[in-house]
Amino acid sequence: MNKARIAIIMGSLSDLKVVQPAIDLLKDFKVGFEVKILSAHRTPKELAQYVEAAPKKGIKVFIAAAGGAAALAGVVASHTALPVIGIPVETKSLKGLDSLLSTVQMPAGIPVATVAIGEGGVRNSALLALRILALSDKGILARLERYRKSQKSKILKIKVKI
Amino acid sequence: MNKARIAIIMGSLSDLKVVQPAIDLLKDFKVGFEVKILSAHRTPKELAQYVEAAPKKGIKVFIAAAGGAAALAGVVASHTALPVIGIPVETKSLKGLDSLLSTVQMPAGIPVATVAIGEGGVRNSALLALRILALSDKGILARLERYRKSQKSKILKIKVKI
Amino acid sequence: MNKARIAIIMGSLSDLKVVQPAIDLLKDFKVGFEVKILSAHRTPKELAQYVEAAPKKGIKVFIAAAGGAAALAGVVASHTALPVIGIPVETKSLKGLDSLLSTVQMPAGIPVATVAIGEGGVRNSALLALRILALSDKGILARLERYRKSQKSKILKIKVKI
Amino acid sequence: MNKARIAIIMGSLSDLKVVQPAIDLLKDFKVGFEVKILSAHRTPKELAQYVEAAPKKGIKVFIAAAGGAAALAGVVASHTALPVIGIPVETKSLKGLDSLLSTVQMPAGIPVATVAIGEGGVRNSALLALRILALSDKGILARLERYRKSQKSKILKIKVKI
Amino acid sequence: MNKARIAIIMGSLSDLKVVQPAIDLLKDFKVGFEVKILSAHRTPKELAQYVEAAPKKGIKVFIAAAGGAAALAGVVASHTALPVIGIPVETKSLKGLDSLLSTVQMPAGIPVATVAIGEGGVRNSALLALRILALSDKGILARLERYRKSQKSKILKIKVKI
Amino acid sequence: MNKARIAIIMGSLSDLKVVQPAIDLLKDFKVGFEVKILSAHRTPKELAQYVEAAPKKGIKVFIAAAGGAAALAGVVASHTALPVIGIPVETKSLKGLDSLLSTVQMPAGIPVATVAIGEGGVRNSALLALRILALSDKGILARLERYRKSQKSKILKIKVKI
Amino acid sequence: MNKARIAIIMGSLSDLKVVQPAIDLLKDFKVGFEVKILSAHRTPKELAQYVEAAPKKGIKVFIAAAGGAAALAGVVASHTALPVIGIPVETKSLKGLDSLLSTVQMPAGIPVATVAIGEGGVRNSALLALRILALSDKGILARLERYRKSQKSKILKIKVKI
Amino acid sequence: MNKARIAIIMGSLSDLKVVQPAIDLLKDFKVGFEVKILSAHRTPKELAQYVEAAPKKGIKVFIAAAGGAAALAGVVASHTALPVIGIPVETKSLKGLDSLLSTVQMPAGIPVATVAIGEGGVRNSALLALRILALSDKGILARLERYRKSQKSKILKIKVKI
Repeated sequence: MNKARIAIIMGSLSDLKVVQPAIDLLKDFKVGFEVKILSAHRTPKELAQYVEAAPKKGIKVFIAAAGGAAALAGVVASHTALPVIGIPVETKSLKGLDSLLSTVQMPAGIPVATVAIGEGGVRNSALLALRILALSDKGILARLERYRKSQKSKILKIKVKI
Repeated sequence: MNKARIAIIMGSLSDLKVVQPAIDLLKDFKVGFEVKILSAHRTPKELAQYVEAAPKKGIKVFIAAAGGAAALAGVVASHTALPVIGIPVETKSLKGLDSLLSTVQMPAGIPVATVAIGEGGVRNSALLALRILALSDKGILARLERYRKSQKSKILKIKVKI
Repeated sequence: MNKARIAIIMGSLSDLKVVQPAIDLLKDFKVGFEVKILSAHRTPKELAQYVEAAPKKGIKVFIAAAGGAAALAGVVASHTALPVIGIPVETKSLKGLDSLLSTVQMPAGIPVATVAIGEGGVRNSALLALRILALSDKGILARLERYRKSQKSKILKIKVKI
Repeated sequence: MNKARIAIIMGSLSDLKVVQPAIDLLKDFKVGFEVKILSAHRTPKELAQYVEAAPKKGIKVFIAAAGGAAALAGVVASHTALPVIGIPVETKSLKGLDSLLSTVQMPAGIPVATVAIGEGGVRNSALLALRILALSDKGILARLERYRKSQKSKILKIKVKI
Repeated sequence: MNKARIAIIMGSLSDLKVVQPAIDLLKDFKVGFEVKILSAHRTPKELAQYVEAAPKKGIKVFIAAAGGAAALAGVVASHTALPVIGIPVETKSLKGLDSLLSTVQMPAGIPVATVAIGEGGVRNSALLALRILALSDKGILARLERYRKSQKSKILKIKVKI
Repeated sequence: MNKARIAIIMGSLSDLKVVQPAIDLLKDFKVGFEVKILSAHRTPKELAQYVEAAPKKGIKVFIAAAGGAAALAGVVASHTALPVIGIPVETKSLKGLDSLLSTVQMPAGIPVATVAIGEGGVRNSALLALRILALSDKGILARLERYRKSQKSKILKIKVKI
Repeated sequence: MNKARIAIIMGSLSDLKVVQPAIDLLKDFKVGFEVKILSAHRTPKELAQYVEAAPKKGIKVFIAAAGGAAALAGVVASHTALPVIGIPVETKSLKGLDSLLSTVQMPAGIPVATVAIGEGGVRNSALLALRILALSDKGILARLERYRKSQKSKILKIKVKI
Repeated sequence: MNKARIAIIMGSLSDLKVVQPAIDLLKDFKVGFEVKILSAHRTPKELAQYVEAAPKKGIKVFIAAAGGAAALAGVVASHTALPVIGIPVETKSLKGLDSLLSTVQMPAGIPVATVAIGEGGVRNSALLALRILALSDKGILARLERYRKSQKSKILKIKVKI
């Protein structure tokens, strides 16, 4: 596998199936990534150490997934100058509205690039990371352009039978 | 002034006027407290150090006020086994709904005692801290009982003219 | 079993399964508690009597669980100077948003320490009660610290296979 | 003034100006009423005593106005078998959504007749009380019918100039 | 069966199962009622005729159940001076928040006594109607008092086993 | 002025200033319209008569503006087979969310073409009516196309100075 | 089949089952329509071309169905002067509230006639299109009037058994 | 001024004051940018041309600000493989909740990096763009690190006077 350029962080193992579509997409793009279980609340110091050490290992972008009072993406962004993408995980009662507001309503100074609640948002977290990497990697850019074309041609090929 | 037993933390000086009613109430009760400006996002390490050092200085309860993606109370709670009270500060656009959900919807393991958005919640943050201290301080308990009686007698004295 | 220091109150037997994770956690901590079915609306006087008599029996903290127009925690807090923790129970239609606002938006003078809707909030109600008791019980404090460490080490031990 | 048949209760004097349109409307209808400041949280016992004593004094309907975690109408309803009308008072941050859900989402067994947030709701609380009294008072019924006609004719008389 | 004093109106047959708990409760109380399917939107004239003719038949209170843009209760209230109770029916997507706001946020002049979304609200619609009828029917009042006592004693009899 | 082809209905004179931008736009387009104050709740019969008589007078499209439990557009649609456009008027407390849901969440069978809360929605109500009329009036279509071009060219002419 | 006068557009094949009730209704009315899968985001140019070419083919009204950040109806409306009806598709997490606000809150100049979230809204999208076509097609008008009568008579025939 | 690497797009001149804090921040960082008024709805073709031509001019990141049914950022993202940051502009009635959901809830395939409603979000849009550029520009990275340090030291210097 390629050297990890993207780090996907989540606070518990149960979120792994949530981020799986992002993992699958990064594998399809053959872009190296690593997945880490670290919690803003239960392992704040290990999280800080991991985030601060990441740039030296070649990490360029973080993706953080969390639900409820979702502090993870913001805390990651507080320990780095790298871009951080936040995935608001759907919750049982409030359906992710809590996760969304906790992820996106960041105070000035600590940007989190928030994507949608749900599977579309998870896929887009990977695509956003790839768009960022593609700024200095023409191979990724070419694959992104192919991906965009295939999305388009899939739609145009559909024959609707009523 | 008495030795601080309550620590009030907020992420920016602009929140000081928000928590002022809690400060006034603690002064009325003659219970020592300290006020600290520390941000979960801008000064995460200084915040961790302050929270971890607090028990040795005699702090028994934390009050944390923050707005928007309000991670402060949860992050304080992640660094201590002391009780932490969270004040969701009203925000300009979403009126504190974002602050409330970011403060109250904490994951299992990291409790935050959340009070109401607005001035009532701020006063109650102090009263909740005092109720906790009163468990081992009969002086505070007596003053709390007097406070409750005065609240009651104020209402009963009102003469309504229609 | 140990003498009850925490009283868990709910308005109907159907809420018992909701608060079960808090009960389990208190059992694990070997801290005495009692569970009482009393309604703010159907048995207001019995509730008042129970709450007022509780301190003499050794109760230090109340946990109250209710859904919908959830008046229970606030009414408990109106009859005592002890700390009161409110659990907003998830509801069928509004998913607990009604319970949350009814529990947390208390007027000045009557503090309720509100936790999250859902199982995480229920567990945290017990942990918050334990943090309060731990202020004057080094045994509970030690167990809380062990609990926090075990939470942390559980996360750090996870091996992610992608 | 006529003997009071309607009791308007509110938790603080500041809500008096909120219910003023209901007071004015009852005066116009020349139906006796009384206004009482009593809080579900600060004076629960006095509230219970007042509500329980009301039927003997001739009270037929209660109107209760409260904001935030608005327990007042529900608590009034828990102490009586008379009809209880709840006015959800607009709040500063959540604009009365908290008051509305706390007033309307009552559990089975304790009905509260909830009206709208805002001045329209306040007026309607009085009109609803009058509709109830009119079931056994033809004088009120006649005035209600005149009121309905005047509402209608006011609209039909409007000449729009564009 | 007794002569109908309560009219339950709904816009479609599918709402019949929703209001069933109100029907059951009225049967238990042995108070006469009738059930009518009439729509504010599909049969506005038949609805108006039915509502206007109801007082002469002995109807004293209307209960109207509707979901979504729930105009029914308000339209009933516009054709009568009798008290009208509105049940906001839970909807598939917005879970009855649309029904609640469409039912409760009535303009000044047209009061609708709104109860909760869900089964508790449905039961309370019947109990509210009964409280109104009980003002001039001591038999209903006595049964209401017994009902309230049985609710209370049911709770007090519960033995919790933990 | 041209013969009225559009009828703008509102429930009270206070909504006239809300719909003024639609009136101004129709005047600019020189398309005949009339404005009528009629309430779904206060003048249901006059409203029904007006709506039913409208087609014979040449009315082709209705625009109905209402706030809160906004039944007006739906009730208009229940009395006609003409297209009905609903404007959800902003309200003081809930900011028009109540108006929007009451207008848009119509049951199957009674379509209301809902536009946005606020001035943009009001303008669009007129433009939507004009788009409908333009299907059989080339003059209006030509003016709509000029309007669309002028909107575009206004934007393209803007010089931003930073 | 008749020549298409209505174009139903959706962004993905998965929305076809959502719009099926509109398709069925148009078939019942024997009004020609066509269904097209085109995305505002994945095929913006093909969408623009399709929308711009539609009037020459005889299309009079567009129906666009989309969920989440539902730009489709608005983008269709930006490329045409024909009336555009928007269906906000229910989403997994936010239940279509996102779709509704993205469809209805259009800026001034680009009207979208928005219908309800859910099956009722889908049916109403077809009925609204038919009401628009009926302005210049007496056959459709006659069928709409029959449809309205059958809706009414269906309700009036219901016999409720309690 | 430096060659533009960031393009800030908004749909109307009135949004210019909203994005001003982002402009100021980019000036402080001495990073070239350009500001363009183009609307997803009023000038879709000019927008597409501008976005497609941008990479050749050296643009690396887009920032798009829009309110209400805010399609702009998503439409920009549909025309490019560059990263796109979306600012949900606060709206008069719904306070930007409409803008937020319209910007963030993007379907899979078209990522938009969404920041907060309000001034904090606007500043963060610029900081996020700078974090992305800093991946291949050590000068920007150094300034970002200085900015983060100054944010921190500003907080640590505050002396609170109570």
